[in-house]
Amino acid sequence: METGLRQFEAIAQALAEAIACGVYRPGDRLPSIRQSSRTHGVAMGTALRAYDELEARGLIEARARSGYFVSAPRVARLPEPEQTTPARRSTPVEVSELVFRLLDEIKIAGFAPPGSAFPSPELFPLATLSRVAASAARRLDRWSSVRDLPPGNAELRRLIAKRYQLHGCAVQPDDILITNGALEAIGLSLQALTRPGDAVAIKSPTFYATLQAIERLGLRAVEVATHARTGIDLSELERAIRTQRVHACILMTSFQNPLGSTLDDDKKRDLVALLQRHSVPLIEDDVYAELHHGALRPRPAKYFDRSGQVLHCGSFAKCLAPGFRVGWVAAGRWHEAVRRLKLMTSIATASIPQAALASYLRDQPFDRHLRSLRASLASQLQSMVTAIDRYFPPGCRASRPEGGYLLWVELPEQIDALQLHAQAEKEQISIAPGPLFSPQRRYRNCIRLNFGHPWTGAMEAAMRRLGELITAAR
Amino acid sequence: METGLRQFEAIAQALAEAIACGVYRPGDRLPSIRQSSRTHGVAMGTALRAYDELEARGLIEARARSGYFVSAPRVARLPEPEQTTPARRSTPVEVSELVFRLLDEIKIAGFAPPGSAFPSPELFPLATLSRVAASAARRLDRWSSVRDLPPGNAELRRLIAKRYQLHGCAVQPDDILITNGALEAIGLSLQALTRPGDAVAIKSPTFYATLQAIERLGLRAVEVATHARTGIDLSELERAIRTQRVHACILMTSFQNPLGSTLDDDKKRDLVALLQRHSVPLIEDDVYAELHHGALRPRPAKYFDRSGQVLHCGSFAKCLAPGFRVGWVAAGRWHEAVRRLKLMTSIATASIPQAALASYLRDQPFDRHLRSLRASLASQLQSMVTAIDRYFPPGCRASRPEGGYLLWVELPEQIDALQLHAQAEKEQISIAPGPLFSPQRRYRNCIRLNFGHPWTGAMEAAMRRLGELITAAR
Repeated sequence: METGLRQFEAIAQALAEAIACGVYRPGDRLPSIRQSSRTHGVAMGTALRAYDELEARGLIEARARSGYFVSAPRVARLPEPEQTTPARRSTPVEVSELVFRLLDEIKIAGFAPPGSAFPSPELFPLATLSRVAASAARRLDRWSSVRDLPPGNAELRRLIAKRYQLHGCAVQPDDILITNGALEAIGLSLQALTRPGDAVAIKSPTFYATLQAIERLGLRAVEVATHARTGIDLSELERAIRTQRVHACILMTSFQNPLGSTLDDDKKRDLVALLQRHSVPLIEDDVYAELHHGALRPRPAKYFDRSGQVLHCGSFAKCLAPGFRVGWVAAGRWHEAVRRLKLMTSIATASIPQAALASYLRDQPFDRHLRSLRASLASQLQSMVTAIDRYFPPGCRASRPEGGYLLWVELPEQIDALQLHAQAEKEQISIAPGPLFSPQRRYRNCIRLNFGHPWTGAMEAAMRRLGELITAAR
Repeated sequence: METGLRQFEAIAQALAEAIACGVYRPGDRLPSIRQSSRTHGVAMGTALRAYDELEARGLIEARARSGYFVSAPRVARLPEPEQTTPARRSTPVEVSELVFRLLDEIKIAGFAPPGSAFPSPELFPLATLSRVAASAARRLDRWSSVRDLPPGNAELRRLIAKRYQLHGCAVQPDDILITNGALEAIGLSLQALTRPGDAVAIKSPTFYATLQAIERLGLRAVEVATHARTGIDLSELERAIRTQRVHACILMTSFQNPLGSTLDDDKKRDLVALLQRHSVPLIEDDVYAELHHGALRPRPAKYFDRSGQVLHCGSFAKCLAPGFRVGWVAAGRWHEAVRRLKLMTSIATASIPQAALASYLRDQPFDRHLRSLRASLASQLQSMVTAIDRYFPPGCRASRPEGGYLLWVELPEQIDALQLHAQAEKEQISIAPGPLFSPQRRYRNCIRLNFGHPWTGAMEAAMRRLGELITAAR
């Protein structure tokens, strides 16, 4: 991986990843400082510093005269949040100032990133992307601006369809519409399915960007109870559909933002069947699916869709190339409607990023990059959970996502996450307070944390400081 | 200019441009065939073919034993359209199927392009753009995806501001928001200014993409009488504002699509004053301004704006780099509102196209490219008007834009442009029928023609065939 880490941080990261992947198990002895310094070709002092770092994170422990050993995972103590219980009514959506503050914080150099919704740019294969984009730019064809009009670059659509086939989904190149990232795909899909004032069912809590899309279109949200591990409660969803006129359901189905929960295959099948029974289309926001920490990519709900009622939205922004702004939607029976809205909204997506991604998918080791990315995220998750367990006061709960880079922390009830955000902001630590994720402004004592950044001393310090602020606020 | 023209076409084009620019005046003798073949290093037969081509277009004439002479312009016969007279009420907007058919026609190889809204990709400096984009991709920075979040690439905004300064506009880099083309800029601006159901004043006829943006947001349109040379009628605009609750006015102010009309400086000043008097913000769609055929770029209405009430939208798509999908808006006092909507709609604009355009504007001869582009457009306009004059039946009127690449033709009253479109489509000739440009579905006997394509034999043949279809339909 190409990173901007210092030597000792890179060594610590590599070892942490090996521990997260089970190469070293709890109780295993690690290579000695001397061995490590040889392996990585660094000074003994640098290797020592890496081990100190891992010890400080609680991942390893030194035993006198025996060396360094992998610690027993301590995180089991930290309980998971329980299922949420939003009010069963629809709410107009109005997103606070705070979302924009949060988006601006991440642009400030030196700001600790746990509040961000973006993974670290350090995690992506910049040199390779840069090379394929340069080559795509050199091969730029005079007529590409015409040919790449919606549905978009044909070769890129073919290669995306190939990945669908890999996961068992019968999505064809002509079923795919290229968009300016997944957010445009979601916005166009929502617009194709609804009129202002219509109600849309969402999980609760739900990502604020989704709420903003709902707000922008003047829709109402019906929040549905959701569990931090198993996702949306289907009987509550059915109740919402029975009691209110729901025009669409919009859900992340794997490693969802902010909870980290995933619907298993059975639940996805039941979800699709339920929605089909009630003729409610599903906008499936599936931008984190490639970031599974386990061996298998979870299936999308789209896999179970036989009637074209699932509009499946994907993106390269979270797993490969953030600045390219290329996403897509396989909108089923709404494909033509969404294509027309795309033409009416932004005409087309830029040619060079599309051609570059097509070239990357065709000729570069995407899966190798993903394996490395997943290992980093799995290790960073462990560091994050360990840090919460260590620094946060008793009474906290944290979700345990099996993929992605976001988790949800329930703080003791008396903590006000908005106040905590304001305090943390003063110390240049960014966090995402719970009320941003609910039109009903619930989750006042919750925060979303981002572990999509290399685990550095600065990150550790930010978590420690957060813990102090929370403890002081109790 | 880099083009795909054949040799004789390129020579004809160069001579036609020299005639359009006044290098050769009516009555002037042209170089002999022999001289021309030497000058261009081609066979006598090729030079002869170029002269035949120009003669066929009516630009030059052979005189026995004397050589070739520039013809007297014959186009003065062709009258201009009169001011339009739309009904004085607001109308919900619903754009027909036909717009999407038109957008799809231009993707079909071999389709004659006069119906398209895009200039020919042949007119742009592809090799240079390709080179600067490749170089921008190679220099791609890991943090650009964060830094280029709205308002967008700082260097690009600085260089756009520099061009504003050149035209006397006090627009600063921080006043500019980069968007996915001008259409996104217009859509975001409209959304910042209105709520569904609000009325927006537009010129009549108006570009269908603007109508689609209005439709998408559920707004109503008030069409205002407009003249093909002088643009919107200000007293009619004021009457509309006085009699109806108009929330915004959206206008092209120079070389507007589809009429080709331009508001002169006095009228722009009066327009801004009028709107300010009534507190109606102006969305100024100014994407054609750089394409003036005369010596001077017309000022934008934004130049006369002292209160931040003009939201000025520009783009590189029409004058430099169509497939890059980079536009902008200087939204005055709505800058922050529009920036937030951009974050909520598509998050950001892709980094590489922004960096490439910044590099082009800083280091490449943009103005030289523009001069060459303008000369091509001026010459193609002359060819188009000459062709209308020659092939269309009596009773036609055509506008005479002083810039851009679109003109408006009023056909004899009994002609139905929708039927004409259907007939022409069968013969792979694309035209844009008048009713697309009016929510009230006026202009049944009008068409918009695009002269933004190199004038070839195929174009001449398409115009001749169109003339035959019109004549037969009378």
